[in-house]
Amino acid sequence: MSEIRSRIKELLAPIAGDMEVMNRVLQAQLVDESPAVQDMTSHVGRFSGKQLRAALVLLVAEASGRRSSEHVQVAAIVEMIHLATLVHDDVLDGAEVRRRVACVNERWDNQTAILLGDFLYSRAFGLSTQLKSRLTSQLLAATTSRLCAGEIEQSTQRYDFELTQERYEFICAAKTASLYGAACELGARVSDQDGSGSFAKDDELARSMASFGEELGLAFQIIDDCLDLVGDAEIVGKSVGTDVEDGKVTLPVLHIYASASEQTRTQIRDIYTQDGIQKRAHHLRESIDLAPGLEYARARAEELVDRAMERLDVLPDSPARRTLKSIGDFVLGRNW
Amino acid sequence: MSEIRSRIKELLAPIAGDMEVMNRVLQAQLVDESPAVQDMTSHVGRFSGKQLRAALVLLVAEASGRRSSEHVQVAAIVEMIHLATLVHDDVLDGAEVRRRVACVNERWDNQTAILLGDFLYSRAFGLSTQLKSRLTSQLLAATTSRLCAGEIEQSTQRYDFELTQERYEFICAAKTASLYGAACELGARVSDQDGSGSFAKDDELARSMASFGEELGLAFQIIDDCLDLVGDAEIVGKSVGTDVEDGKVTLPVLHIYASASEQTRTQIRDIYTQDGIQKRAHHLRESIDLAPGLEYARARAEELVDRAMERLDVLPDSPARRTLKSIGDFVLGRNW
Repeated sequence: MSEIRSRIKELLAPIAGDMEVMNRVLQAQLVDESPAVQDMTSHVGRFSGKQLRAALVLLVAEASGRRSSEHVQVAAIVEMIHLATLVHDDVLDGAEVRRRVACVNERWDNQTAILLGDFLYSRAFGLSTQLKSRLTSQLLAATTSRLCAGEIEQSTQRYDFELTQERYEFICAAKTASLYGAACELGARVSDQDGSGSFAKDDELARSMASFGEELGLAFQIIDDCLDLVGDAEIVGKSVGTDVEDGKVTLPVLHIYASASEQTRTQIRDIYTQDGIQKRAHHLRESIDLAPGLEYARARAEELVDRAMERLDVLPDSPARRTLKSIGDFVLGRNW
Repeated sequence: MSEIRSRIKELLAPIAGDMEVMNRVLQAQLVDESPAVQDMTSHVGRFSGKQLRAALVLLVAEASGRRSSEHVQVAAIVEMIHLATLVHDDVLDGAEVRRRVACVNERWDNQTAILLGDFLYSRAFGLSTQLKSRLTSQLLAATTSRLCAGEIEQSTQRYDFELTQERYEFICAAKTASLYGAACELGARVSDQDGSGSFAKDDELARSMASFGEELGLAFQIIDDCLDLVGDAEIVGKSVGTDVEDGKVTLPVLHIYASASEQTRTQIRDIYTQDGIQKRAHHLRESIDLAPGLEYARARAEELVDRAMERLDVLPDSPARRTLKSIGDFVLGRNW
């Protein structure tokens, strides 16, 4: 893991200074006069992982030559919204460990995790209302609605083994890729000249960067779903196998199921649903040859990353652009 | 109950038209392209109760002669934030019934309720970012943070029978009264001239109205806590007894406990904590003479309402001001 950490550090070198300032802004927002809240936000502060979304804001701003005085705050806001979703996700998933740190729902309880997530959301929105332009508030409020709607859709489609790939991707785009897209769009759109809150809707570069982020985010989610299925909690750094436990049927399984015999289908459904099965993901891995599904999902993620990379062609060469290029490989290269 | 409903309708006559428009704005915000989300927001739309917070925005705007073209939206936003907190509160409380309608956590599950609450928050913030002034976004983001921090503080002080009244009120002020205060402050502050997002900090009327709302909201919470302790679910219209179940020690019990014998104290603690007790609130009511505590709490609520009413002296007489006066009596007159 320390290898991955140092690789990320190397990758983010072109924005190292900004990331440091971003983290100071983030930490300052986690301060509260309530000792109970302070205790919890300090705990959550330790979740700090790759901070990929914040990095994307800063990298896109840098690579597109549009870096403004407020991008660091925007990056912190995006990261806080991500933190809020993590805290709530861990309740939804009944997860125990997040980045080698106990989840809020484990360390305290579900109630606290719900409230803390709400607190983080409102702090993030609060900070966004202090920026010169209202663009960040507007885009992130819309993104958060979409993100929640995606999660709700997903929860109603649990145990649906005949979910189409299109529908699966639609849900992943809403629940995950939307925030990647917003991060990249804000990187390209926020500017010091933007005091009025208006912005050019026909900004082609910003639209390209939004698509870049969405495609990258969708690839990230597909790989994440593969890791949840067959990854090692020690290496991934969070609880795995939760999708199978929760009845979330993800791309590798959907692919296998679609072309499986009736007998295999029954077997898969039973592993997801029968009472008393311990470690369902492990059981699935042992009973079913998942390799073709994983390969298919990986190929789809690669296709998405390729498409995302092409979006970068409009940008001039720079260290920041080179990092954006490497992030695609990084997303694909996550261990399982 | 229909008697209360018609009494409220009569009370709100001076803003009946605005309340209708407010509800149309609110309903429009509950529309979503996701069928699952739509299904849930329609369900939540049926929670529509007294809509006291929205009414306060409109009444204060009217009574202070400051009604602007955007107050109806502001009122809808405040009501949506309240709806979001209700949906999350019901998860926290494990409640089953809200205004005679099944809670989201009961009708679907806790996961859905968390996501739906988040969705409502983000829709509310989203709408606020569309207003001419940023005041609503700023004030409501700050209020929501305070509200969550108050709930978190409360959850860490469960089973604390020696909580001071000051601390109890501090928590109630944060978790409940803050939104009443913000509603009244926005009623007085939002104006059509406010396009720049700046506003007069030394606006004395707005400060008075904020205090009016906070005091009224604190009284409301104290009465609500009394109702939870001894009210009838049929009359109150929501699950009661949840505070005792959850270990929330509220003003009436704190008052009794403070002057009780060691034997009575032990008895109270046992009722809150011993395993296997069914209907703890009922048990408490049967075993302990709660009347002095309820009287004390009611007297405190009356004192707060009196203070709130004095704040209205700066306003000229009008139907809206007369309604604001009556709301104080209404808050105190809730049945138990």
